[in-house]
Amino acid sequence: MGETVRIAIDAMGGDYAPQEIVKGAISALEEEQVELVLVGREDILHQRLNRHKLNDPMLSLFEARDVIAMDDDPVLAVRQKRDSSIAAGMNLLKEGKVSAFVSAGNTGAIMTTALLTLGNQEGVERPALGIILSAPTGPVLFTDVGANADCKPPLLVQIAHMGSFYMNRVFDIPRPRIGLLSTGKEENKGNRLIKEANQLLWSSGLNFIGNIEAQDIPAGVADIVVTDGFTGNVVIKLAEGLGELFINVSRQGATGKLSHIMTPSLLKTVEKRLLDYSGHGVAFLLGVNGNVIVAHGRSETEGIKRAIAVAKQIAEHEVHYG
Amino acid sequence: MGETVRIAIDAMGGDYAPQEIVKGAISALEEEQVELVLVGREDILHQRLNRHKLNDPMLSLFEARDVIAMDDDPVLAVRQKRDSSIAAGMNLLKEGKVSAFVSAGNTGAIMTTALLTLGNQEGVERPALGIILSAPTGPVLFTDVGANADCKPPLLVQIAHMGSFYMNRVFDIPRPRIGLLSTGKEENKGNRLIKEANQLLWSSGLNFIGNIEAQDIPAGVADIVVTDGFTGNVVIKLAEGLGELFINVSRQGATGKLSHIMTPSLLKTVEKRLLDYSGHGVAFLLGVNGNVIVAHGRSETEGIKRAIAVAKQIAEHEVHYG
Repeated sequence: MGETVRIAIDAMGGDYAPQEIVKGAISALEEEQVELVLVGREDILHQRLNRHKLNDPMLSLFEARDVIAMDDDPVLAVRQKRDSSIAAGMNLLKEGKVSAFVSAGNTGAIMTTALLTLGNQEGVERPALGIILSAPTGPVLFTDVGANADCKPPLLVQIAHMGSFYMNRVFDIPRPRIGLLSTGKEENKGNRLIKEANQLLWSSGLNFIGNIEAQDIPAGVADIVVTDGFTGNVVIKLAEGLGELFINVSRQGATGKLSHIMTPSLLKTVEKRLLDYSGHGVAFLLGVNGNVIVAHGRSETEGIKRAIAVAKQIAEHEVHYG
Repeated sequence: MGETVRIAIDAMGGDYAPQEIVKGAISALEEEQVELVLVGREDILHQRLNRHKLNDPMLSLFEARDVIAMDDDPVLAVRQKRDSSIAAGMNLLKEGKVSAFVSAGNTGAIMTTALLTLGNQEGVERPALGIILSAPTGPVLFTDVGANADCKPPLLVQIAHMGSFYMNRVFDIPRPRIGLLSTGKEENKGNRLIKEANQLLWSSGLNFIGNIEAQDIPAGVADIVVTDGFTGNVVIKLAEGLGELFINVSRQGATGKLSHIMTPSLLKTVEKRLLDYSGHGVAFLLGVNGNVIVAHGRSETEGIKRAIAVAKQIAEHEVHYG
């Protein structure tokens, strides 16, 4: 193993900030070999940290006085709140003082700040959001999961390029197989956007394998599944909802009539597989020059801890940008 | 209970037609109080029925000599294959000789034939496809699941109207709560289509409750979840894929190391809940004057049996059209 990865955390972003963010960071330090920088209002963070009686050399604070709210208009907020925790964290990343930045805050503000501060990779107009799913074949990148609700066909091709770059660098896949999410495998299936993107992808030079259907994603038929940010966001939220539903079904088994057979250990096995599949809400930006991890806005301790683990993993794979 | 419901089945439509369709029909007759009419090529069907040594007064055949293939162009096929099983079955419905028509065949051809033969309900330009999901609050109608891949905002409002009519008539819900599937509850969330439809729905006179997110569907926050046919189709296929994944996880528990705790009875309980949620691929047309059930193209015996059960349920609720 190389040197310890240093990660900045937006302590003020997310529905349960700062308490759950701080707790998640402390919890991550107990399990992971990482150095964390909590970015936000030091007065508030000091209180939280005292409460946790923490004095860890692997944890430091970085002052940012503005807070961007979850429902702030992203462009306005970025313009007016110059010393936000998002802006400050992104600057640490830009300056190379940290290897990754994690935020559960306003996604639009994170994207806008990333573009302004870090800049986009060559040929990229707009970044995309991706998540990694587990398949028997290995990791599967699912993108865009929310950055671009309205896509034109060429943007889907760009997303495919960003994804291909990413899977090549992070997972050493030489020519990642790209599938386009549609309602059928045939080229004439899908809506207008997908039909046009399908044509463009065949001549993109990428390793395009054609349309794929949602039910085939878990089997790993493609290394990258490309979709527009609206559909992708709906899909991950549905996976999340179904995961919770199935966990509840299993838990009912564990506490109700079936409690003699649904033991805590089986429940844990089932939950692990479900959460693993649903991605647990840890997304990251594709197409910008830096490792930016976007945790679920509703992240609590466990979610932040997972986001930090993903950040560490990505940073250790040393994706080089520029 | 009233008189026995009579249902026509397209024996030639679906990836596993006619064998699985015939088997599904025979299986349904063993469990349901229904009268079935198998529509298709009598020569082929006679063979299949002999093989099953069947001579049931509740089962009859209706000759249709043309077969529309799953990958036929819908409009061309409907024009050229005048004596298809889809056309013949739809005519039986139109003439009142059956109360519902079930097909696992070419969805586009089913829709086109339904519009031409049965006609559309007042104010409806294009029919939609719906499925019923189970929620703790009762049944939830999810629509459009594939009829209209490209929607304009007014079409989503029409789909909401069709759904409202349906849930009112079939499930006696006075003012069904309508949710619009989006990426966030706020009105400014979603893509352009959804933002515009949101505005139109508030002034539609329907019981619109605003945007809802995919993870909230299973809880039953709305009686009707409205979406475009592309997103809806992706969503049900994903639910299907995740359902299979989770069943496999459970089965691994049942056959592998955990087999001493994951018993067949628990497995059955889990599977039942999952299949119930995923809707098992039984969709129906909204907006046309008749009960048309669209079974999954990959339906086997069990799927056809479920489609017949759904057809019976809808027909017994006596949705009156016109």
